Order: sequence, then structure tokens, then C-alpha cells
Amino acid sequence: MLYIADLDTPCVLVDLDVLKANIEEMATLSMQAGKRFRPHVKTHKCIEIATMQHDAGADGITVAKASEAEVFAAAGFSDIFIANLIVGQPKLDHIVRLAETCRLTVGLDSVAVAEPIARAAEARGVVIQALIEVDTGHGRTGVRTVEEAVRIATLLRTYGHVSLQGVYTHEGHAYRASREQLPELCRNVVRNLSAMREAAERAYGEPLLAVSVGSTPSTQAMSTIAEVTELRPGNYVFRDATQVRLGSPVERCALTVLTTVIARPSSTEAVLDAGSKALSGDGDCLCGHGFALGHPEARVDWCSEEHGHLHLGTSNWRPALGQKIRIVPAHACTCVNMHSWLWIVRGDEVLARWPVSARGRLL
Amino acid sequence: MLYIADLDTPCVLVDLDVLKANIEEMATLSMQAGKRFRPHVKTHKCIEIATMQHDAGADGITVAKASEAEVFAAAGFSDIFIANLIVGQPKLDHIVRLAETCRLTVGLDSVAVAEPIARAAEARGVVIQALIEVDTGHGRTGVRTVEEAVRIATLLRTYGHVSLQGVYTHEGHAYRASREQLPELCRNVVRNLSAMREAAERAYGEPLLAVSVGSTPSTQAMSTIAEVTELRPGNYVFRDATQVRLGSPVERCALTVLTTVIARPSSTEAVLDAGSKALSGDGDCLCGHGFALGHPEARVDWCSEEHGHLHLGTSNWRPALGQKIRIVPAHACTCVNMHSWLWIVRGDEVLARWPVSARGRLL
Repeated sequence: MLYIADLDTPCVLVDLDVLKANIEEMATLSMQAGKRFRPHVKTHKCIEIATMQHDAGADGITVAKASEAEVFAAAGFSDIFIANLIVGQPKLDHIVRLAETCRLTVGLDSVAVAEPIARAAEARGVVIQALIEVDTGHGRTGVRTVEEAVRIATLLRTYGHVSLQGVYTHEGHAYRASREQLPELCRNVVRNLSAMREAAERAYGEPLLAVSVGSTPSTQAMSTIAEVTELRPGNYVFRDATQVRLGSPVERCALTVLTTVIARPSSTEAVLDAGSKALSGDGDCLCGHGFALGHPEARVDWCSEEHGHLHLGTSNWRPALGQKIRIVPAHACTCVNMHSWLWIVRGDEVLARWPVSARGRLL
Repeated sequence: MLYIADLDTPCVLVDLDVLKANIEEMATLSMQAGKRFRPHVKTHKCIEIATMQHDAGADGITVAKASEAEVFAAAGFSDIFIANLIVGQPKLDHIVRLAETCRLTVGLDSVAVAEPIARAAEARGVVIQALIEVDTGHGRTGVRTVEEAVRIATLLRTYGHVSLQGVYTHEGHAYRASREQLPELCRNVVRNLSAMREAAERAYGEPLLAVSVGSTPSTQAMSTIAEVTELRPGNYVFRDATQVRLGSPVERCALTVLTTVIARPSSTEAVLDAGSKALSGDGDCLCGHGFALGHPEARVDWCSEEHGHLHLGTSNWRPALGQKIRIVPAHACTCVNMHSWLWIVRGDEVLARWPVSARGRLL
């Protein structure tokens, strides 16, 4: 039997029971609400975890990149939504090949993105599903006016090989809302999506049924809104210091980074052997780069590449040099992408080592 | 012939001529100043580039991790300084094995770190070189008092298998100084190092000759200070938006991330297919996550995982959807670690693809 204490640091630990509970809770929520469920696997990039999500009832998976889709399609996943804009010949070639092996869906937010995809699908003789992306307040990609949505729908009417399904958004601005603000934020998001969907449907001339949303903090509220047909949270499988700041219980954090105290420069400081190359550079003034499991007041307040500076804060906890401690990182999705393996644990025991199979899939 | 325009995005480009010029300039500076030169290869993690540094006159290399050292030792590098604190049995086992294949140097900043290394070296019958790390103002690791340096030197007097060489620091606070402040900052750093070196030498009872410093922005000033014996810059091979902010010419930036415009949500915004998983999460309010090569006023002001939000700022430049543009990232060292390959270019041509051989070496 291998124990956590035997592992060299830094490395990623995933508590299997917490992972399972997180996966089952969200699948059950979606099922009971009657929503389609296509979780975003960019969080874990791990075939074993996507399989757990499938076995719990997921209807498919969402990915961020064509090269991520490739990994999961090769592993047998048959319904994959690339929730991103496919631009450029290499990626067009890639997705039409993928569409021969699985039911592939892509995002569109302009005619300039939509038309080359429609042509490539026609040339290859494959059908690609599409959803119009709507910017519902996050300020990134997505149509911002009804006119843009109508232009895309009108274009696609004339192309047989792209099957328009409806609309989607990533309501990332839910991360900037309080728990109290979430219900109204979600209603506004869905009102916006519904207006786009209806206008696009009129232009398309066929029913566009899908209204797809995705972000972990908004999932509960979104599941109660009738117009929503699909939920696509990603981070919920692991959660992290950001989710805890937003109200998620610490006990639901499945992922920690195991690290060793390599210096104790003063009574309130510990330096860890995990920096931005192990925790990721993500973090903010509210949760730093993460906190110590069991000692949430002890925070990684700054990182260099290979060192994390843990400020012990108001706690009386005084970890010794050489002691191994577990950090709940600020952002689990970017943290996983720094590692090749996930160590699957229960209590003090290490049960397995799973590869981060789609790590670094950027194309 | 392969051209940059043929590459799928995002990917890392390295301009070979700029890389060579950067490598030669720093090697020449060190040689003319009569300093030992052991550049930090964590910046590129690439055997081909370390070989160029060696061929230009480097006396050895510096790494951050034992597992990085392993990659370069296996490639034939014979003088390797792990500028970090080795803590825990797996890493002790690792470094005594490495010390059988190369001249290995490690850092020490406490008796608690030094003693297990001395015992492990003795048990294995190998000699490991060591430098006492001094915190000269960066506030991370390193002894903060003369007494701590003396305790380490006194301990090592009784151990034959650790050969104390002197002192070192990473003067990372040079990044927070203006060009005008650098000479005085460097003099203060070296004054501090010299006091530590002298006290340690008296306690050790043998000459401790090494006074080793390392950070790209301070290298020029440090090369003029007589007491300094060794320079260990890392970032200088590539440079980045942070170095440009500190006064480095844009023309010296060897590394860019090739990316495609996937959306133009407004006249002043472009969304790129490179986010924090391609550029790295590093960045700050002064240089964002990087700027567009040729259009320094256009900055990536925020990133999500797979999207970079380019604000075109005051420029009249209006990149089209589908256009490929090159981003000088905020931090080249963390950017490279996100990628498996470096595309080596000259003008519009792609000359080679070099592996980031020590990518993700965290242990």
C-alpha cells in the first residue's frame, strides 16, 4: 500500500469519495431538473473522470479545444461540444475529421466564423451541430446583438451540413456575483438567451430548442429556470479556493496540491515547494493562490515559479520544516494543467495514479 | 519550407537570431567582467538552448528542481547548480544519485536543510557542493541573519561530503526597482552577501570564494561589482513584456506566442485563441499578460483559460478575424512551461522544432 506521506512533492491529490459525491450531486441535480447535462472536462482533462461523469448520467462532454476533443473522441466519447470558436484551416480540417467519429457541436458568434465551418463540413460531407454563442455579460466572445444572431441563422439556413441547435453562453460573470445576486443574474442571462434564440429561430425557419448555460456557481440557480435546456459546469468535480470564497463548503474540495515546507523564514511564514508552476499563476487578492487544508486562514499570498509563500495569518498553526501540507489552489482547472498525473487518494492511502491525458492540448 | 503562417495556433515562436544575440551578449559581458557564468535554464527548459549557452562560454547551468537537473545531466551537462532547498527523502536520494554523474551544487539556508544533505552525501560517499542562500531583500528563502549563516558553516565543518563554496542570492526585488535604483540596490545586495560570506568563512575555517547573484535586470550592474564572482541570469535568452517594461528593447524579445484572432467584439477589442493555458497566468497591471509584437500599445488585458482579451488601446491597428498575431508574453519562463515545443524561426520561415525537455519537471 502506498501512502500520501510516501509521495514526492509537489503533486496533485484527488480525494476519490469527494470527487464521486461532487459528480453524483450535479448529475442528480440536472436529471431531477430535466436538463441535458454536458459537463466541461477542461477542468480535469482526464479520461477516467470523464468516464465517471458519463456513468453518473452525463449526456456528453464539453471541451475548450479541438485537440482536447480528439483525446476524448479517441477514448470513445461520442457526443462532444467544443464550446469555442473554430478559426483557421488546420482547425477546420481537424473538426471535420472529428465529426466523422462523434456527434460534434461547435460554437459560432459571427458569420465570419460560421461560413468556413459550413463550407468545410459540406466539402467533407459531414454534419456538424452548432450553437450560437451569446455574450450575456462576461464580455468575452459571443454575439452582443440580436442582429448578429439573425445573420448567423440566416446564413446557416442555406447550408445543409451545419445543423443549428440553439444558443449557449458561458456566464463567467457569475464568479463576480454574490450568492444573493445569482438568481437575478441567471434570470437576466436566460432572458437574453431566449430573445436571441427566438430571433435566430425565426431567421432559421426551424425550431431551435437548445438554451445551454455553463458555470459551476450558477448551476443550482440555472437548474430552476424552465427555459434552460442544458447545464455545462466544469469546476464542480474538484472545486477550489475560489468556489469556497463563493460559498462552497471546504469539505467539497476534492483536489489539493501536496507540498513540503522547505523554509520557515519567520514565525508567521512558511515557504512551500509549490509555486506558480505547480499551483498555476491564477489567484486574486481575495483568495491568494490557495489556502492550507485544515487551516483556511493560512494563505499562499504570493508565488514565484517554484516557491509558494504561505502566510500563516491569525492561526496558531506552526508547520515544521519538512512537513507535508495540502493546499487547496485558487483555481483547480489551471492547476491540473500544470501536472501530468493525478494521485487518487482515500484518507491517507493512495489508490491510483490517473494521467491528465489532455494536458496542454492547446490547438 | 515551412512558414509561420502554416502553423496552427497557439504555439511558441523563438527567433533564432535574437536568441543567439541575447546568449552571446550575456556570455561576453560575464567573460569580460571576469565572472563565472551559470545561466538559469528554467527559462527555456530546452537542451538545445542550454547547449547554445554552453557553446557561448557558460561555465555550467542553474536549475530550480532536482528533476530538471536530471534532464540536463542525462544530456551531458556536467556542472549543475540546483538553486533551491532540497528537503525530504525522495529528493535527497535523487541528488546523491545525481552527484555521481555531475558536479552538483545545492542551496542551503538552515541547519535543518543542510544536515540531512550532509548525511545523505556521506552515506552515499559522494561530494556535493553547497552555497548558503541569503535573503538580500526578495523576502522568500535565504538566511536573514549572520548567525544563521554561521550555524550552517559551523555544521558543515564537521561533514566532509558537503563542500561549502560561498554564498548566493536571487535578487528578485530587482524587478521592483527602476533602472536608476538598480546600481544602489546591487551594491546593497553585495554588501549583505559579503558580510554573510565573511562570517561563514570564519566559522568554516576555509576560504569561501563564491559570491553568486542572479536576475536578468541586475546582471549589467552586478557585473561591475568586484566582490561578485558569479552571474546566473535566466530570462535574458528570451526576454518578455516585463523586461521591456524595465527598459529592455522590444527587438531583444526572442519569444512570442503565435495566436489567431477568433472574435472582434468591438472596434477596440480582439479575442485571441491564447489564454492563461498558453501565455501562462502571470501578468500584472503594468504589462497585462503581454502585448502584440509591432503594436505595443495593444495589450492582453485579461485572460481566461483559452482566450486572451486584446485591448487595441490607442492604436489605429485593426487586426481582422482570422489574422495571426504574435504576442510578447508578460513572463517568458512560465509561458514556455505551458508548451511542449518551441518553433525556431527566422523571418517568416520555420527552421526547426525543439522540445521543452524539462517541461513540468516539478519534483
